[in-house]
Amino acid sequence: MSLLTVGSVAFDALETPFGKTDKIIGGSGTYITLSASYFTQENNLVAVVGDDFPHTMINDFNQHGINTEGLQVRAGEKTFFWSGRYHNDMNSRDTLETQLNVMEDFDPIIPDSYQNCQYLMLGNTAPAIQQTVIERLKNRPKLIMLDTMNLWINIANPDLMSVLKLVDILVVNDEEARQLTHEYSLVRAAARIHAMGPKTVIIKKGEHGALLFGEGRIFFAPALPLEEVFDPTGAGDTFAGGFIGYLAKTDDTSFDNMKRAIIYGSAMASFCVEKFGAERIMNLTEAEIQDRVSEFVKLSAFGLE
Amino acid sequence: MSLLTVGSVAFDALETPFGKTDKIIGGSGTYITLSASYFTQENNLVAVVGDDFPHTMINDFNQHGINTEGLQVRAGEKTFFWSGRYHNDMNSRDTLETQLNVMEDFDPIIPDSYQNCQYLMLGNTAPAIQQTVIERLKNRPKLIMLDTMNLWINIANPDLMSVLKLVDILVVNDEEARQLTHEYSLVRAAARIHAMGPKTVIIKKGEHGALLFGEGRIFFAPALPLEEVFDPTGAGDTFAGGFIGYLAKTDDTSFDNMKRAIIYGSAMASFCVEKFGAERIMNLTEAEIQDRVSEFVKLSAFGLE
Repeated sequence: MSLLTVGSVAFDALETPFGKTDKIIGGSGTYITLSASYFTQENNLVAVVGDDFPHTMINDFNQHGINTEGLQVRAGEKTFFWSGRYHNDMNSRDTLETQLNVMEDFDPIIPDSYQNCQYLMLGNTAPAIQQTVIERLKNRPKLIMLDTMNLWINIANPDLMSVLKLVDILVVNDEEARQLTHEYSLVRAAARIHAMGPKTVIIKKGEHGALLFGEGRIFFAPALPLEEVFDPTGAGDTFAGGFIGYLAKTDDTSFDNMKRAIIYGSAMASFCVEKFGAERIMNLTEAEIQDRVSEFVKLSAFGLE
Repeated sequence: MSLLTVGSVAFDALETPFGKTDKIIGGSGTYITLSASYFTQENNLVAVVGDDFPHTMINDFNQHGINTEGLQVRAGEKTFFWSGRYHNDMNSRDTLETQLNVMEDFDPIIPDSYQNCQYLMLGNTAPAIQQTVIERLKNRPKLIMLDTMNLWINIANPDLMSVLKLVDILVVNDEEARQLTHEYSLVRAAARIHAMGPKTVIIKKGEHGALLFGEGRIFFAPALPLEEVFDPTGAGDTFAGGFIGYLAKTDDTSFDNMKRAIIYGSAMASFCVEKFGAERIMNLTEAEIQDRVSEFVKLSAFGLE
């Protein structure tokens, strides 16, 4: 089934305890769509960049089977830029600089050829933009998943509450879930989020894995314990991309299939953190992904006597 | 198989956001041995209390099949006392008061009838006391498991390094593992601990579950996501008691059986936090434990297509 991803395509400059990058390609749309491309064949991207964005990267998207008809390239403007520095524990980071540039007035235009996408992934952007995307689709997709962040919870809460009514799945991290609901218990936080609209809630806990809440059930997916996290940038988006890509590929939105999708998403995220930016998820093989998924099985399977 | 537990039997006074207790029964030995009593029939306790300790509690131990021949009751002395206050997130706490009392010169005397115990659980006490216990056993138990804490890592590091050479399993929480090894990655921390002696390492992560490292393999056990943690006191000891009690019951120290034991330990810990102190683990039924274990299966099982 076809997937439509709306998100940012950006330049990032990163500093971690392991090194420092110049401007490299980042953005939620980039990570989501690349990750999903390993699962679904019909990948459609809506995003905006400036004319400083390299054509080679657009070619790379296309080589991954990603349709870039909806990637607007604005002449004379600059691509969204973010730079950040990770602390030693890799669990926290400081933003050094944010230049919104083309994102300041991003208008998510949906090409006609994207109109019948059945799976929609709304990467982290302003809730009003996310809602505009939904409104511009002539037919409601079979499944809409939305990511957001602390910034929008703070400064655009009414917009966020409005768009949450329209989506099937919310994916957030544990801090965001707590901030959104004022509940410390993630079980209670998920219950409050269900009441806001999404029937399914995914709470990412970084190195501690992820929780899936839906149909009155809970599933706990581990994260792969790693010797080293080289660069966590994009891991959450890569997780979301693997998750929704797997759902779109299998076209099965049951809770049991979402459990499998979370394992695939977690496997993709475990690759992402091995190198700077999206480097590692640009060139994965099917065999590598299957091997990694097998590691998750070994990690969490137990048989009772 | 028979289990010998050495640990503290104490009075605790607790404050949580849900309420406050007077002096209630606590201590690592209490939680471990009560939890293990649901699995192994041969439970032997070595600990020390003052004559202020209630006989009714000793009767309760005996009714759980716990042999208290090794529980020294010192006339004219007072039982170890600790009081603490939990913060709102329940993940951190302040110690309000510690009175070592009888623990100040605890001499772990092993009754002859305990000599052939095959499983030994060294609850959190001074490493020198833990080593004395091992030295006083005429035959080395089949399996020795040791718990410790930040205090001993700081003030008794050489003693701890000495006893670690003699044990099979170290159980610590994530902070303690990092403090002991100066490694942030828990995978690397476990590797360093292996080099200190223990072939098996269990790292508890509280609400994030637990990791088991051994035979070059890793197992990740989830914690049950709870709406409410009423009182986390003793959860780690209850986990350890369920774990080693299950090993002693099944008399199987393979990695695959340790995975099952961790699930049973996690189930026991999930009960412990539901009420103040050891109240909830005083009166569990076999059926309640099996139901809880089934919840862990539902929580973490996934089938790949």
